[in-house]
Amino acid sequence: MKKTITMAHGNGGVLTSEIINDVILKTINGNTLENMTDATIVDDKYGFTTDSFVIYPHFFNGGDIGKLSVCGTVNDLVMGGCIPKYLSLSIILEEGYEIEKLQRIVESVKTTCNYSNVKVVTGDTKVVDKGHGSGIYINTSGIGEKIENLNLGRDNIRAGDAVIITGDIGDHGVSILCEREKLLDGQLSSDCMPLVKLIPLIKKYAKYIKIMRDPTRGGVATTLNEFVENSEISITIQEEKLPINEKVAGACEIFGLDPLYSANEGKGIIVIDGTVASEFIEEVKNINEFKNAAIIGEINKEEHGKVLYKSRFGGRRILGKLTHDMLPRIC
Amino acid sequence: MKKTITMAHGNGGVLTSEIINDVILKTINGNTLENMTDATIVDDKYGFTTDSFVIYPHFFNGGDIGKLSVCGTVNDLVMGGCIPKYLSLSIILEEGYEIEKLQRIVESVKTTCNYSNVKVVTGDTKVVDKGHGSGIYINTSGIGEKIENLNLGRDNIRAGDAVIITGDIGDHGVSILCEREKLLDGQLSSDCMPLVKLIPLIKKYAKYIKIMRDPTRGGVATTLNEFVENSEISITIQEEKLPINEKVAGACEIFGLDPLYSANEGKGIIVIDGTVASEFIEEVKNINEFKNAAIIGEINKEEHGKVLYKSRFGGRRILGKLTHDMLPRIC
Repeated sequence: MKKTITMAHGNGGVLTSEIINDVILKTINGNTLENMTDATIVDDKYGFTTDSFVIYPHFFNGGDIGKLSVCGTVNDLVMGGCIPKYLSLSIILEEGYEIEKLQRIVESVKTTCNYSNVKVVTGDTKVVDKGHGSGIYINTSGIGEKIENLNLGRDNIRAGDAVIITGDIGDHGVSILCEREKLLDGQLSSDCMPLVKLIPLIKKYAKYIKIMRDPTRGGVATTLNEFVENSEISITIQEEKLPINEKVAGACEIFGLDPLYSANEGKGIIVIDGTVASEFIEEVKNINEFKNAAIIGEINKEEHGKVLYKSRFGGRRILGKLTHDMLPRIC
Repeated sequence: MKKTITMAHGNGGVLTSEIINDVILKTINGNTLENMTDATIVDDKYGFTTDSFVIYPHFFNGGDIGKLSVCGTVNDLVMGGCIPKYLSLSIILEEGYEIEKLQRIVESVKTTCNYSNVKVVTGDTKVVDKGHGSGIYINTSGIGEKIENLNLGRDNIRAGDAVIITGDIGDHGVSILCEREKLLDGQLSSDCMPLVKLIPLIKKYAKYIKIMRDPTRGGVATTLNEFVENSEISITIQEEKLPINEKVAGACEIFGLDPLYSANEGKGIIVIDGTVASEFIEEVKNINEFKNAAIIGEINKEEHGKVLYKSRFGGRRILGKLTHDMLPRIC
């Protein structure tokens, strides 16, 4: 039987890594995901990144596919250590899609670009026949200017570094699930937000920051695994320190979801030198958008290449990467 | 009744311009298509462009969606006056798509990148559920280095300039139609090809070149219209000078197609100062890939903003932009 693509190839977890590593990266440049950051630095000066957005529904509490398409690429640039400057906007429309909805989505792109201080400078529009799309798919690619004195990468991470998250975990994934299944009556909201207000602090603490990533598909647990897999270090995170919105926690309990694997679309994970971590986190929390930021754990050498989770009651378990599909088409 | 997207919004003609101008560009930046080139120059130094590819079938005589995705973006950069350097590759897969096909497509991306001397430096993979895609959609965005002393734009075009095409017209569109409808038994082939071998000549003649564009969706006629619409100049092209493959001409006769509106994926239209046109065309024709290049017409002031077509027998008609859909999902 021929091997075919499954929904789990798109969830941001193990199978996504497999298809990207084995089929795409190996063919294209012999590279692997491990060595890649969200934005690739070219000519030692610019960051370049791309993302396609296939989320459903197109409009949700806290955003829409237009806002998300800008946030996703802007956040990849910021977490890649760049100041976002230029975006491309490429839209695949399905025959029969309402032009009024397209108009609202494009307005949302515009508003989010303004907030992020980026410009859409090039674009493309294609139409596919009914039954071959989902109303609208959007690709944004982005160019940013590399922040000076910042040298990001897994290789910089050392025991003693602190792991920071810039706010509550899991909001986007859980709220999209509730929206799609018409649960909880709109009480939850996606955290979809550009991370640009972190830029002044990233500049200020440039020489102490080791790696940054926005934990989207696959959530916090998968991103942390990508930081340490196949290395000699480990990450220990403390349950009691994880910031989480009460309603999101409640929804996770009811529906059996794990917020550590649920997508975020307006959060950053930052690994920073332990000696400046408390000072840095105070400055982050002073920005209103990031008031729930927290130090959630630390880098150590307890178990090579693993992410360890210490529960409130002292239990310890290993957190793997996402394997099974929690929720398709989340971004 | 609510206005909705139709297939004709995607054909590269009048309705495509409408949706892009009225819904997208007006909202995003108050710009119009008229002032835009294939690649946008940013920071006065780099070209940036994007394209999504939704072609069906994925494999065709002369190429596949992978090769096309590289050619499309590389050619937009070259025609935008840039040396292509970096590409992004974003893939939307449909559940159930054969991984072996994906592998072949990615290999084709690689081969075409090598020919073009560009690198894929960033990527993304998403999966959509069955019935919401067409196997595979690809977006490539590209960054190129602006060629010095080149100043492209409609405003540079003057009466007396020559209009050049780098080879036979209409091959891609007509061959895809035949492929899709299983006509002519594979005798035709897409012209899908990167235009990078023109770069040395573009550099050499930089100060004489006024505008360049690859005539894809909408074909040669639509591209020429974009050069002159709402201006005080016109273009006259001569039927007898148009290079066309005999089999493509034959297929057009049989199926009632107009090759002037059929897509090309490996051709450039170049408007150049009339004083160097013969010298330039000889050099272009010396490159094997462009041996059928020809001067097909000239810029004049016969009818403001129009493209005029002089037939072999002396008749004259106005060539408009593509309106009705000749062929959907051609790129």
